[in-house]
Amino acid sequence: MSVTRHEITDGSQGLPIISRVVVHGGLVYLCGVTPDPVGDIRSQTTQVLERIDRLLETAGTDKSKLLSAQVWLADMRLFEEHNAAWNAWVDPRNPPVRACVRAELWRPNLLVEIMVTATK
Amino acid sequence: MSVTRHEITDGSQGLPIISRVVVHGGLVYLCGVTPDPVGDIRSQTTQVLERIDRLLETAGTDKSKLLSAQVWLADMRLFEEHNAAWNAWVDPRNPPVRACVRAELWRPNLLVEIMVTATK
Amino acid sequence: MSVTRHEITDGSQGLPIISRVVVHGGLVYLCGVTPDPVGDIRSQTTQVLERIDRLLETAGTDKSKLLSAQVWLADMRLFEEHNAAWNAWVDPRNPPVRACVRAELWRPNLLVEIMVTATK
Repeated sequence: MSVTRHEITDGSQGLPIISRVVVHGGLVYLCGVTPDPVGDIRSQTTQVLERIDRLLETAGTDKSKLLSAQVWLADMRLFEEHNAAWNAWVDPRNPPVRACVRAELWRPNLLVEIMVTATK
Repeated sequence: MSVTRHEITDGSQGLPIISRVVVHGGLVYLCGVTPDPVGDIRSQTTQVLERIDRLLETAGTDKSKLLSAQVWLADMRLFEEHNAAWNAWVDPRNPPVRACVRAELWRPNLLVEIMVTATK
Repeated sequence: MSVTRHEITDGSQGLPIISRVVVHGGLVYLCGVTPDPVGDIRSQTTQVLERIDRLLETAGTDKSKLLSAQVWLADMRLFEEHNAAWNAWVDPRNPPVRACVRAELWRPNLLVEIMVTATK
C-alpha cells in the first residue's frame, strides 16, 4: 500500500520538516494543529478545528470519520471552555476517542494543539 | 470499512463528547482512561487497567492484543510504583510499545492516565 | 492478522515491561525512544534518531516509510536546535505528520523522547 503525503513543509525558520497530512491504507493522519497565538481558548479551539476540517478535506474525508484525537491545553483551567468549542464542532453521533492533558506548546500564547486520525 | 463506536458520552457537566471505544479495520482505539481521583499511584493504576480490560472486552479483545500505549503520570517520582502495577497486569509475552511522560491531568488528584490501541 | 513483537523488555530495575517494536497489519509501532542522559539537544536528538533507524530496521522498514511522530522536549527553548537535528535526518520528501510538546521525561537530564509509527 502506497503512502500519500500532503502539504510537506520546508523546514525553514527553525521549524521541522513534516507532512501536514499522511494517507495510508485507508487511514488519514494529521499533524498536531495549532491556531494563531492570539485570542481566548474558544476562538483558538474553533480555529484549530476549522484547520482540521480543511486538512481532512485535503484527504477526502471529514470529521464524521474521526477515529482518535489528542488534545494538549496550555492550562487545565481552560478545559471546560475548550470542551464547549469541541462539543459545538464534533459530530455527536461519531466522536473519536480522545485524551486531553496539559502541556506547554511550541510557541508562547498558544493555548491548544490537537492531533487527529480519521478513516476515509 | 465501517467504524463502530461504543460508549459515546453526552458532553454534559463541562466534559467533551467522545467515544470511549472506536473499532475500525481490525483496530481498537480506546480513549484516555483515568481513575477515580483518590488513592495512591498503585491503586489508581490498577483501577485504570481494570477499566481498560472492560473497554477492550466491549470490543471483543483483551490485553494480550495490545499494540501501543501512552501513559501520563502527574509526577515522575511515581514512575517505579506505577510500573509495578503495570508489570503485574500486562501480558509479559505480549506487551505493547509504550511512551510515558509527565503531564498535568484534567482533574486534580488524578495521578495517571493511559490510552491504548489493540487489535481484535 | 498476527502481531509480531520485537525486543520485549523484562521489567527489571523499576522499568515497565514493553515491546520496543510491534508489527501488525503492515504497520510498525515503536516505543518512545530516549537517548543516554548526557550531552546537548543536538547530540541527544541525533542519538534518538539513530536508535529509531535501528528499530525500524528490525521491522524491515526505514525512515522513508514513517507515518507519524510524537516528540516530547524537556524545554521548549530547545525546539529550534532539536528541529535542526530532525531536519538533517528526516527524508524531506517523505516526512511523517508530527506533534511536539514540552514534557518532563522519565529520567533527569533527558532532553527529548520520540515515538513513531511507520509502514513496511
